[in-house]
Amino acid sequence: MDDATERTARAGGRRSGGGATRRAERTATHIEFSRFITRNIPNLEILNDEAMEIIEANAETVLQEIGVNFVDNPGALRLWKEAGADVDGERVRIPKGLARQLCKTAPSQFTQHARNPDRNVEIGGKNLVLAPVYGPPFVRDQAGGRRYATIADFRNFVKLGQMSKWLHHSGGTVCEPTDVPVNKRHLDMLHAHMTLSDKPYMGSVTEASRAADSVEMSKILFGDDFVDQNTVMTSLININSPLTFDGIMMGALEVYAKANQAAIISPFIVGGAMAPVSVAGTLTQVLAEVLAGVAYSQLVRKGAPVIFGAFVTSIDMNSGAPTFGTPEAAQITLGAGQLARRLGLPYRSAGSFCGSKLPDAQAAYETANSLNIGLMSGVNFMLHACGWLEGGLVSSYEKFVMDADQLGILHRLAAGVDISENGQAMGAIREVGPGGHYLGSAHTQANFKEAFWRTGVLDYKPYETWEEEGARDTATLAALKVKKMLGEYQAPDLDPAKAEALADYVARKKAAVPDSFM
Amino acid sequence: MDDATERTARAGGRRSGGGATRRAERTATHIEFSRFITRNIPNLEILNDEAMEIIEANAETVLQEIGVNFVDNPGALRLWKEAGADVDGERVRIPKGLARQLCKTAPSQFTQHARNPDRNVEIGGKNLVLAPVYGPPFVRDQAGGRRYATIADFRNFVKLGQMSKWLHHSGGTVCEPTDVPVNKRHLDMLHAHMTLSDKPYMGSVTEASRAADSVEMSKILFGDDFVDQNTVMTSLININSPLTFDGIMMGALEVYAKANQAAIISPFIVGGAMAPVSVAGTLTQVLAEVLAGVAYSQLVRKGAPVIFGAFVTSIDMNSGAPTFGTPEAAQITLGAGQLARRLGLPYRSAGSFCGSKLPDAQAAYETANSLNIGLMSGVNFMLHACGWLEGGLVSSYEKFVMDADQLGILHRLAAGVDISENGQAMGAIREVGPGGHYLGSAHTQANFKEAFWRTGVLDYKPYETWEEEGARDTATLAALKVKKMLGEYQAPDLDPAKAEALADYVARKKAAVPDSFM
Repeated sequence: MDDATERTARAGGRRSGGGATRRAERTATHIEFSRFITRNIPNLEILNDEAMEIIEANAETVLQEIGVNFVDNPGALRLWKEAGADVDGERVRIPKGLARQLCKTAPSQFTQHARNPDRNVEIGGKNLVLAPVYGPPFVRDQAGGRRYATIADFRNFVKLGQMSKWLHHSGGTVCEPTDVPVNKRHLDMLHAHMTLSDKPYMGSVTEASRAADSVEMSKILFGDDFVDQNTVMTSLININSPLTFDGIMMGALEVYAKANQAAIISPFIVGGAMAPVSVAGTLTQVLAEVLAGVAYSQLVRKGAPVIFGAFVTSIDMNSGAPTFGTPEAAQITLGAGQLARRLGLPYRSAGSFCGSKLPDAQAAYETANSLNIGLMSGVNFMLHACGWLEGGLVSSYEKFVMDADQLGILHRLAAGVDISENGQAMGAIREVGPGGHYLGSAHTQANFKEAFWRTGVLDYKPYETWEEEGARDTATLAALKVKKMLGEYQAPDLDPAKAEALADYVARKKAAVPDSFM
Repeated sequence: MDDATERTARAGGRRSGGGATRRAERTATHIEFSRFITRNIPNLEILNDEAMEIIEANAETVLQEIGVNFVDNPGALRLWKEAGADVDGERVRIPKGLARQLCKTAPSQFTQHARNPDRNVEIGGKNLVLAPVYGPPFVRDQAGGRRYATIADFRNFVKLGQMSKWLHHSGGTVCEPTDVPVNKRHLDMLHAHMTLSDKPYMGSVTEASRAADSVEMSKILFGDDFVDQNTVMTSLININSPLTFDGIMMGALEVYAKANQAAIISPFIVGGAMAPVSVAGTLTQVLAEVLAGVAYSQLVRKGAPVIFGAFVTSIDMNSGAPTFGTPEAAQITLGAGQLARRLGLPYRSAGSFCGSKLPDAQAAYETANSLNIGLMSGVNFMLHACGWLEGGLVSSYEKFVMDADQLGILHRLAAGVDISENGQAMGAIREVGPGGHYLGSAHTQANFKEAFWRTGVLDYKPYETWEEEGARDTATLAALKVKKMLGEYQAPDLDPAKAEALADYVARKKAAVPDSFM
């Protein structure tokens, strides 16, 4: 395990001098960080070749005969026409084989750089990169209950992400800062990721101009040349399922593709509402949508890095609510992984999904189901890997650290079995013999510190101790952990000139236009 | 799904007449029951051939060079000597290849009969049979907290098992009825399973004479000839890891093997205490122990049905407590499944394992991790599939129904993807088109009732409704479900003559010896 984990005393003094040294002396806090996961175990493949071929043929039929809509986007229609598609109004019908052919220029793996190069991530192949919850307008914590999220909450979640050992990515909209005008939010959000974390981050997608701001701010942080030549953002482009690509999302995609920045191209599907109620039917639609979206990204710029996304849930036919951690979602997640690998694209799916209103047993069952399936399905980029609550309406402080703790399990499981001589432990079995005890054996003493994954949240105490300490449940223990992590948080060093330039950019852009909350 | 699920109006009147009819009329309660799982998806194989060969060779070395102890069991030592083992005191050293050779007469699959033939289970192959928690001395429910279990609790858990749609097996010691003398408990427990449930059950293993009582009572229930010719019990024989077979457990095994009744032969391992801290080392010891135990069962009676068991947890090096739902346990569960399949034996592992004291998020994370891994690892018999709490010290009423609900997910996931024309849903995709909505489509209307797994416990209500109804967490909702299920419970019909004979047997055996609480 140690090779994948690094323990860094606060890396003060990398760029600056005395101030960092003094700060480093002030504190003994250690921030642990784990490298992204590289799987040493196989994926679970639930579709046989025949099933995949049927779904692939059906997806081509969908693209050719039904087609997709590119809405409010004359430029996209022009590109499609030039590429050989049949364009009729906003409907784009793509001849069989064309989209798959266009997808071939997309890389199967790419590096997303972080401002701290130790935090760079490899997206694709056997790798799994974990990023936090994205999008909720509400937050919940044990002390304050459920409430609209603010920029203060946003900053707290970025800090928790920076402090979370098993989280490789700072994410994007960890919650919606509803107290900041809609047209200025992206500036504060990017500023928080860039200054409070040194992990990689996501850019804004809510308007082309905000994507452009994301690129500009990244250039301040990384330098113009570096951003021109490297991927420093992975952003989330949702498809309006079924089969619809809206102009705003595509506008952001165009900005990112042109700048060689990565995009997750992701159908957003509630099965039974935005896709058929059947697994094979949903997989067909997912594949058709991703083929069209990825192909379009390559029309904008050949070689632009993209990810095959699949956000899938089912609808509860009684309440109309989306459901999570279900077997149908699992099958789609597993099947879409197989389809993504056949396309040679990195894959995004799964996460800490749950429908529960509280970080209780329901939340944990649903989340664990999805996290386990995510690992087995070969996901390369797992957005929402921690902190998701109530169908994505809420970012939960407690669940963020509870889930982030569980992510350690994925690291260990994916590492596979150590079959070295030390792993075989024949000496220990000989030493202990029938009826003996391993606790005192030399092998146990030499290996116990790294032998087992260790929780930072869950309770293993004796019953009596646990009862004396207040019989606390997981959420209560997690609330204490949140407090501790925010208390111990330290901002990673940042060149003061860059910090000033970023702050200036945000201030200037904010001053340039009136506030809008629409 | 429907083919695997049967909805039975109370099957009154099968054997008797007017009384059953009147009871059937009195009530409209429907008891749902699902057939055992037959996997239509592959297993997850994390060990490659080389790793398995190393572990298998090491296990043979352990048996030949270290050996195993058969304690207080001169008969076993005699059988081993006759079979060609090197017997030195109680130590049995088994020449390489001998144990594996002896295991070959054990069946790879067998039928365990229930008194209701519709509830028979097939153990082995691609099948997965789910049985409830086994062994806890305590129970917990939301109203009464944690307390010693009684026979009244025991009967409640048997009733809950009978009422649980996704549970195929009534289990054994669903909790320890501590208010009944130790030497008479097995009689009351068997009587409860035989009369309150019509699902298959487990026999007593705490003494050879109690195993014999289990066989006798089964003969009353099924008839002498039927029991002689068929397997009607699957019982749990734990190995005293490391490498020790105690005389009491083996005494029970001998009774069952001679009677052609099934036994799970199961190392009971807390990694770091009863086995090495490493996964490969633990797998080696598990395999050596199971080889010796299964071989012994075949020495007692060739062809006796047995199951390759693996109960595995790790020790928390801080508290010494066993831990559950961990990645190391997952790897051992997956690896042992591969080893069991190479031996051609049915496999028992995984369950609703957790260390938590409450049915909270910790309990659910840990349980869901184990349940998912259990499915992926090819488990054929999952003991403890619901109701386990606090490291197995507690049978939880609420968690029993929460877990049992999750078991439905395993059924659906294992069924695989329907790739029929209806599953492909191309008509629906055509009908709805870009930007449309599937809720009203003909395909959705025709399929929605069976399209998705449905919970019987979890909450999907709108936030406002949920809040108005008291913002209940999962455990609170489960407590209501427990009350409802126990209220609606109805005993399955039983021939009054058999019922009387069973009651007589219990009364007679109880009267024959003084109470003992030792």
